Amino acid sequence: MMLVNGQPQDVVTALDRGLLYGDGLFETIRLVGASAPLWPRHMQRLAHGCARLRLPAPESAQLWREALAATQGMAQSVLRITLTRGTGVRGYAMPAAPQVTRIVAAFPMPALEAATYRDGVRLHLCQTRLAEQPRLAGIKHLNRLEQVLARAEWSDPAIAEGLLCDLHGNAVSATAANLFAVVGGVPVTPALERCGVAGVLRAELLEVLPRVEVRDLPLHECLEAGELFLCSSVRGILPVQAVADKVFAPGPVARAMQAHWRGLGFPTEQA
Amino acid sequence: MMLVNGQPQDVVTALDRGLLYGDGLFETIRLVGASAPLWPRHMQRLAHGCARLRLPAPESAQLWREALAATQGMAQSVLRITLTRGTGVRGYAMPAAPQVTRIVAAFPMPALEAATYRDGVRLHLCQTRLAEQPRLAGIKHLNRLEQVLARAEWSDPAIAEGLLCDLHGNAVSATAANLFAVVGGVPVTPALERCGVAGVLRAELLEVLPRVEVRDLPLHECLEAGELFLCSSVRGILPVQAVADKVFAPGPVARAMQAHWRGLGFPTEQA
Repeated sequence: MMLVNGQPQDVVTALDRGLLYGDGLFETIRLVGASAPLWPRHMQRLAHGCARLRLPAPESAQLWREALAATQGMAQSVLRITLTRGTGVRGYAMPAAPQVTRIVAAFPMPALEAATYRDGVRLHLCQTRLAEQPRLAGIKHLNRLEQVLARAEWSDPAIAEGLLCDLHGNAVSATAANLFAVVGGVPVTPALERCGVAGVLRAELLEVLPRVEVRDLPLHECLEAGELFLCSSVRGILPVQAVADKVFAPGPVARAMQAHWRGLGFPTEQA
Repeated sequence: MMLVNGQPQDVVTALDRGLLYGDGLFETIRLVGASAPLWPRHMQRLAHGCARLRLPAPESAQLWREALAATQGMAQSVLRITLTRGTGVRGYAMPAAPQVTRIVAAFPMPALEAATYRDGVRLHLCQTRLAEQPRLAGIKHLNRLEQVLARAEWSDPAIAEGLLCDLHGNAVSATAANLFAVVGGVPVTPALERCGVAGVLRAELLEVLPRVEVRDLPLHECLEAGELFLCSSVRGILPVQAVADKVFAPGPVARAMQAHWRGLGFPTEQA
C-alpha cells in the first residue's frame, strides 16, 4: 500500500522536483509486523538530510502513523519513505516555501536465505567509482545514478553485491550496503565525508563495537583484511565470501554483529 | 500541456525510477511557434545519453509529434522532455526490459530582457563544486542536486547565474548554461569529460567558431579572460558583466555568437 501526502494514492505530479532533479531524500526501512527496530536512527538520518538539503522535515510521529497504515497486515515488510521538494517554477532555484511531497510505500520483504548469512556473499569489484561531493556525502538523497550504473556491471545472480571505490582507490561501500573490514583485529569502516551513504545499521554498529576505526580504507588493505562484511538496515549483516577472486571466511566480528542484529528484534534467518 | 507516454496526463507512478533514483535524462528545448532550431542537436544528445545509461531511445519523430501537440498554439515555449527507466522491482538493478516513461511538457517562455543581452549578466561564484564522475559527465541526466544546491547559494534577483568550478579549481559552467572565455583572443570552453553538461548550443558554437579550444580552464585564467559569456539553448548567448566583483564588458565574440543565435531563427530580444 502507498500513501502520498497521507492519502492512499500511487501517483505524483510529473512536475515533482524529485522526478525533475532528484531533489529529495529517501529511507528504506525494515519492519517486523508493526515494529521497526532501527526507526529512530532512520528518522535521525532523514532529519539530518533535510537540514543538509534545506528541506522542511516532516514529523516523525506522522511518518510512523503512515508507516503503520501502509504496512498493515504484513508480517514482514520493507518501507520506503521518499521526501521531495515538491513542485515549483521550472529551474533549479528552490521554491521559497516548498510543499514537500511525502511518499510512504510498503513492499513485501524479499526472501533472504540462511545460507547467505552463514556462508557469506560474493561481491563484484565495480569499475564505476563514486564521485567526491562533500555537500551530498553521507545523506540518502535521490541522485543514485552511480549506484544504478555500478549495479548494472554484473548480472550473475550468484553475485549479491558490488564493491565501490572512490577515485583515489579507497573502498567505500557496496551499492546498497555499508562495508566493514577487520584489519589486524580492529574493525574499520570507510569514512564517508566525501562520498557514500551513512547507513543506519552502520551507525548502530559504530556504537556497539567496542573498538572501531572510521577512516579511509585503501582497496588493497580491504582485500587483505582478515574479515569483511556488509551491513544493511534491510538485509542485516552479510559476511563477504569473496571479492572477485579474493576469498574470505566469515569471522567472529561478523558473527557477533549478526547476533546483535537478531537481538534488535529482527528475524533469525541469519546464521 | 503535458503528455505522458503520448497521453494527455500530468502524473506518473510514485514508483517510477526517475523519482526513486533520478534514473533518466532530460532535454529543455526552446520552440518558436512550431519550430525548434536546435532540435537535431537535442535529439543527438538524448540518444547519446540513452546509450550511456543503457536506456532504450525513443524515436525522434514520435517526440517531435508530441512536442508539437504539447506546444500547440504557443507563440514561444520551452519544452521539457524527460525519459526515465520506468518502473521495476525495488532496488538499483536495471529491469531486464525497461518500459521507458516519456514525459513531454510545455511551459511558457520566460520573459527575457533586451538589456540582459546588451549589457550582460552578473554571476555569483559558487562555493559548491562539481564532483568528477566521468561515467555521467556530459549527459543531461536527472541527478541535479549539485545544481540545486549551487543555485541556492544566492537569492539576489540581480544575479542571473552562478559560476561552478570542479574540485581542482577549474571553471566548468554556470548552473544551467555553458561557459566560454576569450583568452588571448581565442575562445575557450571547459572540457566536460569529468563533470558538467555538454550543452547543445555549446555544440553549435564549437562548430561555428573558426578557432576554439576545449580544455581545462583554471578559474584564475577564466577571471582574467578578455571576454566571458554563457550559452543556453533556452536563453541564447549571455555576455557576462561580472563574476562576483570582477567586471567584464561584452566583447566581439559574444556579439558574433548573438548574431548567429538570431540567424538560427530565435527571436531578436538579444542585443
